[in-house]
Amino acid sequence: MNEMDRADVVVIGAGVVGLAIAYEAARRGHSVLVLERDRIGAGAAGVAAGMLAPASEADCEDPALISLALESCRLYPGWVASIEADSGMRCRYRTEGSLLVALHHDHLEELERLAAFQQGRGLDVRWLTAAAIQAREPGLSPRVIGGLFAEGDRQIDPRFYMPAMAAAIRAHGGEILAGASVTSIVQSAGRATGVCFTLAGDDREVRGTVIVVAAGAWSNGPLAGVLPPLPLRPVKGQILRLRPGPPLRHVIRTADVYLVSREDGELVVGATSEERGFDSRPTAGPVMDLLREAWRVLPLIYELELAELGVGLRPALRDGLPIIGPSPLDGLWLAAGHYRHGIMLAPVTARLLLDAMDSGDIPPLLAPFQLDRFTQNTTQGVPVP
Amino acid sequence: MNEMDRADVVVIGAGVVGLAIAYEAARRGHSVLVLERDRIGAGAAGVAAGMLAPASEADCEDPALISLALESCRLYPGWVASIEADSGMRCRYRTEGSLLVALHHDHLEELERLAAFQQGRGLDVRWLTAAAIQAREPGLSPRVIGGLFAEGDRQIDPRFYMPAMAAAIRAHGGEILAGASVTSIVQSAGRATGVCFTLAGDDREVRGTVIVVAAGAWSNGPLAGVLPPLPLRPVKGQILRLRPGPPLRHVIRTADVYLVSREDGELVVGATSEERGFDSRPTAGPVMDLLREAWRVLPLIYELELAELGVGLRPALRDGLPIIGPSPLDGLWLAAGHYRHGIMLAPVTARLLLDAMDSGDIPPLLAPFQLDRFTQNTTQGVPVP
Repeated sequence: MNEMDRADVVVIGAGVVGLAIAYEAARRGHSVLVLERDRIGAGAAGVAAGMLAPASEADCEDPALISLALESCRLYPGWVASIEADSGMRCRYRTEGSLLVALHHDHLEELERLAAFQQGRGLDVRWLTAAAIQAREPGLSPRVIGGLFAEGDRQIDPRFYMPAMAAAIRAHGGEILAGASVTSIVQSAGRATGVCFTLAGDDREVRGTVIVVAAGAWSNGPLAGVLPPLPLRPVKGQILRLRPGPPLRHVIRTADVYLVSREDGELVVGATSEERGFDSRPTAGPVMDLLREAWRVLPLIYELELAELGVGLRPALRDGLPIIGPSPLDGLWLAAGHYRHGIMLAPVTARLLLDAMDSGDIPPLLAPFQLDRFTQNTTQGVPVP
Repeated sequence: MNEMDRADVVVIGAGVVGLAIAYEAARRGHSVLVLERDRIGAGAAGVAAGMLAPASEADCEDPALISLALESCRLYPGWVASIEADSGMRCRYRTEGSLLVALHHDHLEELERLAAFQQGRGLDVRWLTAAAIQAREPGLSPRVIGGLFAEGDRQIDPRFYMPAMAAAIRAHGGEILAGASVTSIVQSAGRATGVCFTLAGDDREVRGTVIVVAAGAWSNGPLAGVLPPLPLRPVKGQILRLRPGPPLRHVIRTADVYLVSREDGELVVGATSEERGFDSRPTAGPVMDLLREAWRVLPLIYELELAELGVGLRPALRDGLPIIGPSPLDGLWLAAGHYRHGIMLAPVTARLLLDAMDSGDIPPLLAPFQLDRFTQNTTQGVPVP
């Protein structure tokens, strides 16, 4: 293979955020190289359910994050259409909305809190009676006592979406190297000028006008020796895949579990949030709990094949918000810490990061997501990374 | 490979019963060929926990089966020593006994019934208080209210035992062909004289003085065209493997689950009994139930890796008892339908079947396990196979 020895944009990480940035850059006419130490989809997004749910997940979130999420969801239909046109592949983007159902009074109280919060911000939810929910999804447990319909929620299948993005990048002349493990970011005259990596045992180097680190929970690896480590940690999420799932018309959520139905008959059940470091083993208790909560809301899962136990490591920064913007080193940019929202935020991250690169100005929507929020807080007693 | 074109004994099936028969035959100086359509350990025994527990499992069993099981357990230590000496490999045979524990009053009543039954037959169990059980296994739930100690129960690890048997067979000059799919049993002058099979796409034939069908739930396949089908069905068993398990000193059982600890840190949790035909998919509900019952008795499993979801198809005949003996066709023998007891009964099956072949007489212990019990019952309204 005769790969690039320089590119306008070198992206480290072929997760959903890295691919989105590479796609947006390639579409704007930049030459693009993506370096992925594992394979496309090996990270958190590859096991994720792919919900695009600013209304269902808005509870207690930062207002700036909600604004960013709503903008990303607004972009999604056109973004997907463009990827599908460029790749000739489908992303399995679906628009049926979510049902947030209550199985008991505690669930109902949580939904009331969520509904008040969402309606106060103009997010689109409405109450449904138990009978109305049963009419929409006849397979649900008769123990459902009511719920919310989040009509604006969407979903996308990461296992189709990410390969489609990769194909779209290549269609624009971009290149993706899987198995390329970054060893260092090269600096020259006070700016980042390239990336050293190993591929199949060989040491290689690529020069880049711009280097973007989008390596999820592993982002501090490439930054070693260049920046102080980000206050970044993995948050373990366990998720199950059942087959053949029932053809649910909506994403189903309780306070304890969600169920996402795919058109090919897969039912995704998720997800835990665990502070376990870089531990990617499925474990007995969380699998038991997910199965039990899913079975409570959709009893017919009992007979389904338990086809896959998945684990993803979500990249969480100290404040739970991402960094999307430049670093103190010229030429080095960051798109990291998207936590549970990488898939939802991928289009807006890519679009606005490229706007910032191309114009030199940080778009207002990105202002709250800059690295300096960690480095400027020394007077408030927050440890500096 | 220059494989045999004739053998004294051709065994169809390299499960635990087929391997045991082949080993016993080879040890007695017969030339032996084993034909296995899949790989060694692909059948029910390869996923089984390997408990040798005539006392724990005696509830409601046929007295003839209990006698056979006790004889097999009596043979086991010498049998294992012989295999280990011939193979140079370990079978992981362990002699710590079982604790049959009660978490609530219903469990206790079941144990009382079992204890009465066992003591009436001279099987070796005794009551332990909750405190005595905790002293033996400190990891057990404080909800354990008492239980039985079955000191004579044993275990063996099928994933070590079966490869050791295979090596021991080869050490005696026997041959095992994996991927050899039997197409027919050859008859000539009113007796079975050989087996046709395919291997790697080639049609082959081997002549045999004696043919033994020991193909578990799949035993009716080779018999097609030779005998009426046996009243044989698969009984699905789901089983879990957790790692790293705690170093339990005993097999732990409740009425709902058992836990078997291996010396390499694996904890085996089993097992369901399901009438689902030839369905070998792990399913959500049974996995949930096994995890929950295991967690109730041993709470620390919550944090363990759920390393494997296993499914075995136990071969069950209509009356739940095996067939071990000749068929109506001279030269064709059967060792099938061992149901949940294949590993426990393997040595006695092999020893007595070879005794019968070598002497021409059916040993008294095998008399209740002959095929004619199905073919002679036409007057009692039992459907004839």
